[in-house]
Amino acid sequence: MKIGKATLPRTAISTSNAERIVVRGADLCDALIGHVSFGDYFWFLLTGEKPGPAASAVLNATLVAIAEHGLVPSVQAARMTLAAAPDAMQGAVAAGVLGSGSVILGASETAGRFFDEIDRAAGPSGDLAAAARDAVARLRAAKQAIPGYGHPLHKARDPRVARLFEVSKAAKGGQRFVQIAEAVEGVIPDVVGKDLRLNVSAAIPAVLLGVGFPLNALKGVPMLARTASLIAHLSEELTDPIGFALSYQAVREQEYTGAVPAGFVPGHGA
Amino acid sequence: MKIGKATLPRTAISTSNAERIVVRGADLCDALIGHVSFGDYFWFLLTGEKPGPAASAVLNATLVAIAEHGLVPSVQAARMTLAAAPDAMQGAVAAGVLGSGSVILGASETAGRFFDEIDRAAGPSGDLAAAARDAVARLRAAKQAIPGYGHPLHKARDPRVARLFEVSKAAKGGQRFVQIAEAVEGVIPDVVGKDLRLNVSAAIPAVLLGVGFPLNALKGVPMLARTASLIAHLSEELTDPIGFALSYQAVREQEYTGAVPAGFVPGHGA
Amino acid sequence: MKIGKATLPRTAISTSNAERIVVRGADLCDALIGHVSFGDYFWFLLTGEKPGPAASAVLNATLVAIAEHGLVPSVQAARMTLAAAPDAMQGAVAAGVLGSGSVILGASETAGRFFDEIDRAAGPSGDLAAAARDAVARLRAAKQAIPGYGHPLHKARDPRVARLFEVSKAAKGGQRFVQIAEAVEGVIPDVVGKDLRLNVSAAIPAVLLGVGFPLNALKGVPMLARTASLIAHLSEELTDPIGFALSYQAVREQEYTGAVPAGFVPGHGA
Amino acid sequence: MKIGKATLPRTAISTSNAERIVVRGADLCDALIGHVSFGDYFWFLLTGEKPGPAASAVLNATLVAIAEHGLVPSVQAARMTLAAAPDAMQGAVAAGVLGSGSVILGASETAGRFFDEIDRAAGPSGDLAAAARDAVARLRAAKQAIPGYGHPLHKARDPRVARLFEVSKAAKGGQRFVQIAEAVEGVIPDVVGKDLRLNVSAAIPAVLLGVGFPLNALKGVPMLARTASLIAHLSEELTDPIGFALSYQAVREQEYTGAVPAGFVPGHGA
Repeated sequence: MKIGKATLPRTAISTSNAERIVVRGADLCDALIGHVSFGDYFWFLLTGEKPGPAASAVLNATLVAIAEHGLVPSVQAARMTLAAAPDAMQGAVAAGVLGSGSVILGASETAGRFFDEIDRAAGPSGDLAAAARDAVARLRAAKQAIPGYGHPLHKARDPRVARLFEVSKAAKGGQRFVQIAEAVEGVIPDVVGKDLRLNVSAAIPAVLLGVGFPLNALKGVPMLARTASLIAHLSEELTDPIGFALSYQAVREQEYTGAVPAGFVPGHGA
Repeated sequence: MKIGKATLPRTAISTSNAERIVVRGADLCDALIGHVSFGDYFWFLLTGEKPGPAASAVLNATLVAIAEHGLVPSVQAARMTLAAAPDAMQGAVAAGVLGSGSVILGASETAGRFFDEIDRAAGPSGDLAAAARDAVARLRAAKQAIPGYGHPLHKARDPRVARLFEVSKAAKGGQRFVQIAEAVEGVIPDVVGKDLRLNVSAAIPAVLLGVGFPLNALKGVPMLARTASLIAHLSEELTDPIGFALSYQAVREQEYTGAVPAGFVPGHGA
Repeated sequence: MKIGKATLPRTAISTSNAERIVVRGADLCDALIGHVSFGDYFWFLLTGEKPGPAASAVLNATLVAIAEHGLVPSVQAARMTLAAAPDAMQGAVAAGVLGSGSVILGASETAGRFFDEIDRAAGPSGDLAAAARDAVARLRAAKQAIPGYGHPLHKARDPRVARLFEVSKAAKGGQRFVQIAEAVEGVIPDVVGKDLRLNVSAAIPAVLLGVGFPLNALKGVPMLARTASLIAHLSEELTDPIGFALSYQAVREQEYTGAVPAGFVPGHGA
Repeated sequence: MKIGKATLPRTAISTSNAERIVVRGADLCDALIGHVSFGDYFWFLLTGEKPGPAASAVLNATLVAIAEHGLVPSVQAARMTLAAAPDAMQGAVAAGVLGSGSVILGASETAGRFFDEIDRAAGPSGDLAAAARDAVARLRAAKQAIPGYGHPLHKARDPRVARLFEVSKAAKGGQRFVQIAEAVEGVIPDVVGKDLRLNVSAAIPAVLLGVGFPLNALKGVPMLARTASLIAHLSEELTDPIGFALSYQAVREQEYTGAVPAGFVPGHGA
């Protein structure tokens, strides 16, 4: 790495002196604490502006929508980790956060980028359905999944989708990306040959991009939301532990498919 | 582990069927999305009740207060991690969350437990100053630090402390634990011999316990708050990377204190 | 933090220039690569000395003994994490490593510190049984578990214990801490009232401390060992995925113990 | 997820009963502990076979080569994390492991896949130079870096490269992928227009693929190796802490590029 000015770390997020802490140009104590809710502060941290009413309504709705959905894999991983290391709640939260990957919660960002492409391809006065059809066909040709469509449990549209769209409309959030998301849903049966409905991972970027949420922070929405849920589960784990029970159940009927030495009598495998 | 009923995992947080998701007894879509802010939902996830106005004001204020404080070590670790693994934002968030340990952000919980002890020792009509003195003296005798007092940068009281206390008073939050926190501050010079002022890690439990926030989830407040900040920093890192610059600066003047083989000419060590 | 010399980072582990990399005083390319096995290099990294034959035999034996034990909770957490985030193997490894906590693999270090106390309490010519009795009684009085004794599956002594002791004797490793470990086992029935046998977490420090392995790195032995196993499981996960199956099984019979809204028909909860 | 046989977790790595632990078909206590070194056991865990002499020599050499290179970013992240959470060494190791991403240590796997493509494109009797030229040109056209070539510090070939190649030849490991790696190096100046030399991330797969190491576990080699180094650094951190010093140095000259409120006097920013 070259030595010099270019290697000095720069940030536009925060600075401070002994008396004051400045965040995005505002005095933390005078202008932020007690004046802005936590959900809105997340927007402010990301963008440097306080969200307007639509942005606030939509962002808070998406964070609430995606935070909690029971004992999902990342919650299981977190609760097992806390059972093994009860003194280090941060480790259990981290183990849960690590489950926000491309397959699970990362679909929000992938879907958002997909919608953004369709938006740019269609242009301001273009045909969204045609652009959606092209984009879906391109993914199909590359044998890739359509990010944010289909759900193992909710075969009809995930109930959170309609609710997020309602909130977006009621708050007068921009509807462009909702239209794109529905255009994609509309062409999927024809192009893909299956009726994959919009799931919550597509609804989240659909409503957030409509209020100006930054594309490259989309992945952060499910991560922040799930962290709240992880902390609630870990708080429950401290009083009503199930970490080892989850692990026991997971492998109760496991099958060992490898070889065994002569004379080995199979037992429970774990 | 015994096989049987006792090993079935139980949770009181969430359940669902194909049409509905239930969180803490409420229908997620009907009663929560669009009806509750994210900060308040965190309280609901933890306790099963929506927070009253005082609890909401105080919890949101603490989350805002502790979220961001510049390029602190956990933000550095997260930004370095993203620089090395830009495709895995969850890994960078996790690396940052892992810095919420006993020394740094964990002090909120330790301070909360300390105040809780003083509260119970003093009893409803007892002498807080005397209980505080005993408790501080006990820590001193065990050569332990007083959790939540003193700050490397803010020698006077951290400015966030006064602001959190103001918010708590204005919202009519319970003042018992604020009084305990100040009682501890009052006896420290005498018992410890140094003038260590209340820092934000003590102010957080002081105001939160006064509105009924659960003691065993206190550690979760800085963790959730910092996750918001980590996401903002990682979003900045994606567009204005400093991860490697931080790392370069960190060791620019490092010293190697070990042996070297014959003929080795020292270079830059990293 | 004070500015000045004291804040310069120092390390005795490694330095380099453009042509050479020095580790613990040795030239990495000339003296280490191709000259030392990975297990022995771990010792060298920790201590700056190559292990003698006894230390090498014992360290490698402990690493082999503790690396793999099937689909244990941390392996489950890692495989679930990879299923969710298949592009980020490092995240799945990290999730598994986070399960090396005080309850599970951390017992090696706790047991080691416990044996070290007994060693120092007994002194060179002292009565190990008496010192062990005192130490066990002290833990009992504090209602703490005896670290490294008892196992949910192996009610008799874990088979790895005898094997590690054999290896230690055959390699002529020091037997002092093996004697201490057995002295503890001997007094447990009387002091604790249960016949808890030495498990592998006690056997590991018993043989390692006898060859001079550093006490404060004991926790690292199961962590390094398990990392090898995690990588093998994640390599299997990439070709024969079970991450979601584990998660499905874990909650197949889960029970929701909270309230539900009017008219809610229970379904599968996840 | 479908309910039924398909959801039963299967593994071919390990099983056990109350008396015996089986790993890859072998009895852990009878056949492995004390009979196989840790480096060789890693191979056995991955493949189910003990490595032959060439495979053992090459694998151990690569693990030693890549384990330690001073206070690199992931070591800094780990040491900062331990400073903040000294009770949770597993968290600090995990933070360090999370730095094994696509940009840093993941290049070993990317380079391995690249060599594998060239191998298959050239076929048994084909022209390696031509296949290498095509492959490099394809990456260039896609504006992608050549994985495993170039190094910020070692402008000439990284010294570990020659040493690993020597070990591979001395051990009579297969040279096919070494030839491929050198063919790539040979065409780079012409195709890329820069003289990027083989670095250690290319040398590792070059020698490992020649002894039959599984392609999909390549990423595991630097991760396992670095875990050994992380534990050594964290052990040093416990006795000679520099975590906060690293963090202080990293931001000593930081620049804040955002706005400030009226009257704010800049201080040290962290």
